[in-house]
Amino acid sequence: MDELDVLCVGNAIVDIITRCEDTFLIENNITKAAMNLIDAERAQLLYSRMGPAVEASGGSAGNTAAGIASFGGKSAFFGKVARDHLGEIYQHDITAQGVVFKTNPLDGPPPTARSMIFVTPDGERSMNTYLGACVELGPEDVDEEIVAASKVTYFEGYLWDPPRAKEAIRNCAQIAHDNGREVSMTLSDPFCVDRYRDEFLDLMRSGTVDIVFANEHEAMSLYQTASLEAAIDAMEAVCKLAIVTLSERGSIVAQKGERVSVEAIEIRELVDTTGAGDLYASGFLHGYTSGRSLKDCALLGSLAAGLVIQQIGPRPHLSLKQAGIDSGHIAEPVES
Amino acid sequence: MDELDVLCVGNAIVDIITRCEDTFLIENNITKAAMNLIDAERAQLLYSRMGPAVEASGGSAGNTAAGIASFGGKSAFFGKVARDHLGEIYQHDITAQGVVFKTNPLDGPPPTARSMIFVTPDGERSMNTYLGACVELGPEDVDEEIVAASKVTYFEGYLWDPPRAKEAIRNCAQIAHDNGREVSMTLSDPFCVDRYRDEFLDLMRSGTVDIVFANEHEAMSLYQTASLEAAIDAMEAVCKLAIVTLSERGSIVAQKGERVSVEAIEIRELVDTTGAGDLYASGFLHGYTSGRSLKDCALLGSLAAGLVIQQIGPRPHLSLKQAGIDSGHIAEPVES
Repeated sequence: MDELDVLCVGNAIVDIITRCEDTFLIENNITKAAMNLIDAERAQLLYSRMGPAVEASGGSAGNTAAGIASFGGKSAFFGKVARDHLGEIYQHDITAQGVVFKTNPLDGPPPTARSMIFVTPDGERSMNTYLGACVELGPEDVDEEIVAASKVTYFEGYLWDPPRAKEAIRNCAQIAHDNGREVSMTLSDPFCVDRYRDEFLDLMRSGTVDIVFANEHEAMSLYQTASLEAAIDAMEAVCKLAIVTLSERGSIVAQKGERVSVEAIEIRELVDTTGAGDLYASGFLHGYTSGRSLKDCALLGSLAAGLVIQQIGPRPHLSLKQAGIDSGHIAEPVES
Repeated sequence: MDELDVLCVGNAIVDIITRCEDTFLIENNITKAAMNLIDAERAQLLYSRMGPAVEASGGSAGNTAAGIASFGGKSAFFGKVARDHLGEIYQHDITAQGVVFKTNPLDGPPPTARSMIFVTPDGERSMNTYLGACVELGPEDVDEEIVAASKVTYFEGYLWDPPRAKEAIRNCAQIAHDNGREVSMTLSDPFCVDRYRDEFLDLMRSGTVDIVFANEHEAMSLYQTASLEAAIDAMEAVCKLAIVTLSERGSIVAQKGERVSVEAIEIRELVDTTGAGDLYASGFLHGYTSGRSLKDCALLGSLAAGLVIQQIGPRPHLSLKQAGIDSGHIAEPVES
């Protein structure tokens, strides 16, 4: 098969998004700005208390795959939906974006995963995820040909929550490295880091993962330090490439002997932070797999993240390639 | 039961919204800015060609009911969903907005209605509606108590497309008038007017409908005239109240012997016109049922329409009551 830029592996989730006041989070015991894992019963309860919502395909790595395709890159996705209506929506959206997605849907229960996302007036999102069919992702879902064909295989730390996805990831990493490819992960969420700290550290130390994305809270949670600098130093020591995002303060890329800092783009209005980290990874990895400098990779990350937080929902409504051309980050296509 | 401000009756539809270029509309034979009725087979074909989308509860009268509730008014809705996942989403969203919605869902096929909405770069929306379960709305779905309790019963002209909804509307109008209430309709769409011109004219002439909402294209289509002035004169002659919206040029309210013109609100960016007319009706009817002047009613209509076209999707993401307070259209609540 043709070479692919990035294979993304993650939980296939449809987002159900609403706005709420901070008091709602407190009253319903939702940890703000985090991914709260919930069971079917709590999902039903929260939905009954949730305001009017909109639905959009989401899931961290799925968003990253969609973003890469929106930039014009070639991406694929492994993730498990059920054979139900939300699953159809998920399949439609990611395929329509141009992402290669062929993972077999699950027959019968549980249903396709959904995350109820509450966006507070400060634009911060608090997620409540019922994993549903995602718990069935396993090594049998690894398409070796796609892994071997992908310059980078990227996965989300969230995959340590379902029981067998980590086996799939270890297989992917092996295949990728056997084919001279690179492996990348995002630490996903500070509480996720808390749940799987030793395993994540081991993935990095063992060289299973080459490139790590984290936001500052995740990086500091990983090393249980209050010093961002110490966390970056520690990541840099064990990774080929460590990328730490700092919200409105931009991002830092650390590669042995090289540190690159890039600013966030100016935004007009912060609407919804959902997908910010995922789309940063889209921009960075699109640049990386196109052979750009680390600085340019980080700038493309800033651009994609900055655009997605100015809209509702985790995937860009407009073409990132066009946005890149308009902003001068991507060269105009030459008329032939 | 407690008095209600407005009962809205319409097709219960979940919107599937994407952006596209004008060439897509041409290639797929979609009439721009109109509601195109489609069957299940074409729905499947168009979905296969559609880009990544977001889902949001819609339907013209349902949007109006949601907008009235968002203003703090008391609204109810009659409309038919199926007992499926989209139906659950619809039921959730409208109920969570505070709208009374108790119409029995349909068991078995057809499924809940959906409209694929293509938003072009100019913000205009072109709809492709598969009516699904809506075709089963009939007189048996009329809850007489709710009709009798509602100051205004408002319905959409689109209800002439399904086979038996018009019977339900005639029943509603009879009950409303028997209880000293008013009946209102929107002409919905210029092509819808074309399909049912004589019946719509008869509803107005016979006094079945007291208050008519139309945009300029619908008003001119109704009387098959190129003169907006002539159309408004003709509507005024047969209606208690005629309201004609003029997009960015505001709206005109015509009542025997009185003409009120109101401007559109200034907007920052036109994103998606979906729901503009529906939300204008929300603002107007909320003002009307609160005993406000015609000018204030029209101003509230402009406010709601102006807000909804600056976001994706047909129902306001933010509280219209709060927007009304912030803009000075609605008085601050007095601290007690």
